[in-house]
Order: sequence, then C-alpha cells, then structure tokens
Amino acid sequence: MNLLLLERDEVAADGTVRLADARAAHLIGVLKAAPGRTVRVGLADGPKGSGRVTRVGLDDVCLHCVFEETVPERPPVDLLLALPRPKVLRRLWAQLAALGVGRITLVNAWKVERMYFDTHVLAPELYRPLLIEGLQQARDTRVPEVRIRRRFSALMNEMGSETVSDGEARWLADPTAGAGLRQAMGRRSAATPSTRVLVAVGPEGGWTDRERASLQAHGFQGVSLGPRALRSDTACVALLALAHHVLRETTA
Amino acid sequence: MNLLLLERDEVAADGTVRLADARAAHLIGVLKAAPGRTVRVGLADGPKGSGRVTRVGLDDVCLHCVFEETVPERPPVDLLLALPRPKVLRRLWAQLAALGVGRITLVNAWKVERMYFDTHVLAPELYRPLLIEGLQQARDTRVPEVRIRRRFSALMNEMGSETVSDGEARWLADPTAGAGLRQAMGRRSAATPSTRVLVAVGPEGGWTDRERASLQAHGFQGVSLGPRALRSDTACVALLALAHHVLRETTA
Repeated sequence: MNLLLLERDEVAADGTVRLADARAAHLIGVLKAAPGRTVRVGLADGPKGSGRVTRVGLDDVCLHCVFEETVPERPPVDLLLALPRPKVLRRLWAQLAALGVGRITLVNAWKVERMYFDTHVLAPELYRPLLIEGLQQARDTRVPEVRIRRRFSALMNEMGSETVSDGEARWLADPTAGAGLRQAMGRRSAATPSTRVLVAVGPEGGWTDRERASLQAHGFQGVSLGPRALRSDTACVALLALAHHVLRETTA
Repeated sequence: MNLLLLERDEVAADGTVRLADARAAHLIGVLKAAPGRTVRVGLADGPKGSGRVTRVGLDDVCLHCVFEETVPERPPVDLLLALPRPKVLRRLWAQLAALGVGRITLVNAWKVERMYFDTHVLAPELYRPLLIEGLQQARDTRVPEVRIRRRFSALMNEMGSETVSDGEARWLADPTAGAGLRQAMGRRSAATPSTRVLVAVGPEGGWTDRERASLQAHGFQGVSLGPRALRSDTACVALLALAHHVLRETTA
C-alpha cells in the first residue's frame, strides 16, 4: 500500500478518521504505524494528502488528515473490454486501476459466454475494493468509472451518439494491423495530438468480422502489438501501458 | 491454443505424433479435430509447421507433421526479475512466454523473502508446461531460457564478465527516472539502435539503494513508466510490452 485511500464518509469534518478494517491491519502489521507517524492518504475521487497517526489500538488506527487543494486528473486512457471469464476479470480489476483507467466498459460480444454476466465479479461490492487496492498501489485517487453493457449493438449506438471528442484516439488490438501506435494516435495532426486513448480488447476467441467492422465504423483503428496473440488480460495490461506511454511521448 | 507445441521426442522420424494428454483433449473437445483437418504445430525450440490429423480416438489423436526449414528467432527481450511471491510467479510464467522473452533470470534481492526460493514454482516440471501454454497462445516455439540465482552479487559478477553486447540496452524500471524509453535505448547512436533489451524488475518493496547502484554500474538505465507504482507482475507485463514496442519502432 503506497497510499491509504479513504471513502468520503469515513473522514469527519475536522479531518479525523478511525479505521478498523484491513487497512488498519496493514497500517499496524506492515507499516508499523505509531502515533506521530505520517502516511500518504487520499480521498476516493478526491485530493491526496497526508495523515498523522494519532492513536494505534489493537485492531484500529486513528488518523488526522490534511488534504491538498487539487484533485488528480482522471487517467487519460479508457478501456472497452469484451467481458472476460470471471476468474480473469477478478485478477484484472486491481491491475487496471493501478495502470490508470478513466472508464472501464465491459461489453458482451458474440464469443463471450452469456453466463459470464451472472457472476458476482460484476458486483460493485466485489470490484470496488479491488479497484481501491490497485489505486493504493499506484498512489492514485481516481476510481475508474465502470459500466456494463449486455448488448454490443446498443453500446455501439451509444458511442455513435456520444460526441466523439476530437482529442480521443480509438485503438483496436489487431495482430494483423500494419499501423504502429504512433500512427494510430488518430485523426489529429501531429501539431495537435490526441490527449485521450480508448482501447478495445476483444474476447478470447476474438471479435467477429461484424463486430470489428462496427468498431471500425465507430472510429477504432487497428493497432498491432506484433505478431504474438495474447490472452485478453495480458493484452489489456500491455495496451494500457502502451497507451500511457504514447500519450506521455506525444504530449511531452 | 493457437499452435500445438510438441517436444522433440514426441515426433517420430517420419513426422508422426500420437498425443493422449491435455493437448489431445483440447484438439478433440475444443478444436473438434477430425481426420484430414490441419492444425498449426511447432517443435519446442524448433521450426513451426502443420500437422494433419490422421486418427482421432476417444482420448488420443494422431497427426502427421511437416515442419518449415527455419526456426523462429529468439525474442529480442530478456528479463531480470527479483523473485516474486510464488502465487505471482505462477501467474506470470505463461504471460512472460506469450509476450516473448529470450531469457528469464530470477534473482534474490534484499527485499525478497528467502522462503520464496523453496517453492515448487521454481521446478522445471511445474514451469515448463506453463511456458509451453504461453507459447501455444502466442504461436511461438522458442522456450524462454530460465536461470535462477540465489545471490544478487554473484549475478552482478557474472553480468560483469558476460560480454556486454553493443546492441543490448538495459532498463531499470524506476518511477522517478526522467528518461523516456527511447532515450534509454542506450549507448548506441540513433543510426545503430539497440537490437535487444534486458529489463530489470525489482521486488515488491523495491531494490535497495545498493542494488540499484550495482545495476546502474552494470549498464542499467532508469526508465520511467510514469508516476504510478505498479505491482511487480503488472510491471513485468507492461515493460516487456514496451520493450517489444520500442524495438519494433527503432528497428523498423
């Protein structure tokens, strides 16, 4: 844990917090928190700050927190992901939050098993703590927005009606694509590069031709990660890292 | 499975193979193999080829394989990884092989728990099938070489005596580094860019200052993945993907 992330309703108006859960156990057992010690803290979707430990009990910790004025920017990368197997998704939540994602859209596709939608891995009670875990690792406070769409075509319609921001590049992972990532920064000239990237990752069996055509019609450009076919969770991590890298390079 | 990977001693001199293990079950149950059908095959550390199904039994499959003349190149990226927790390492093997690694060196470090070295996850009987699984996903045949070093300083001495190839860049993941990845392609001029990258990823708690200094003395340059601190398995996947990307770009 590189930052202690707090929910808004956990912090009193005067900045005091009392924790008695896994975070308290971590503060006590791993970080050896003692009164007077300061730890990095953050408010979910709010500012970062610092927390001074005021009291350490057997299984609870009290802190007094002071927060910064500014809230970190939402990460400039979004993910459109064909719903993976529950086991894979469970492993992904924390990694996605750690890598930095503004919005995660989980969508159905032809080669997604229907029963994947009935899993508890899609319940906010399960995934929010995993997202928080990833943010605490990465020292971020911005919780990825999560939306779930059981119909691919309905999502495409929504995307059509969403105003496509001029500054957004849309990438479609495709081992056969010729375009490098830089070229796929999209419809903007080099002088005004894209400032956000939306990455689409298909199901294990791939998108169908029809789904791929629909994505392309909605502005997604094929980008190649080289000739190797990756599992969808590996592809997510690889593409998010590459998207952040290319954004850092083009906006530097 | 995008390619059926065979060990050398499984293939008779005339190219015939009989499988009765998980690969046979996959051919029968998932790929619905029938006599006459052709599947992509490969020889571990040998050429790719194609296999024609000649017989399908209840739980075994016979194929006749023809192999290409050339053997795929060894992936141009290597990994130096402080030994992670067994659970994390178990998850990594297949992903590393899928992303493409020439050699994986697992090393001790100050913040690595000693007991991690006593795990069965370090036994070839356990990790080789996982590497093969990753190669079958990525359609590659080159099995990563694995070496395990229980002493960091001994590995550094070895690296000192290894002839540092002019064409090799050495990267050290470091959130505080200023250098982008392109600059870290190393000691070579832009006209003759590095053709291999060796990526070092530290333990969860990070390298010590002394370990970091030793790595730098052995030619490792800090590269930043941005300000976010990543778990070591996420960092491995991200860095390997970035190393492949930068090599593709600079050697294109």
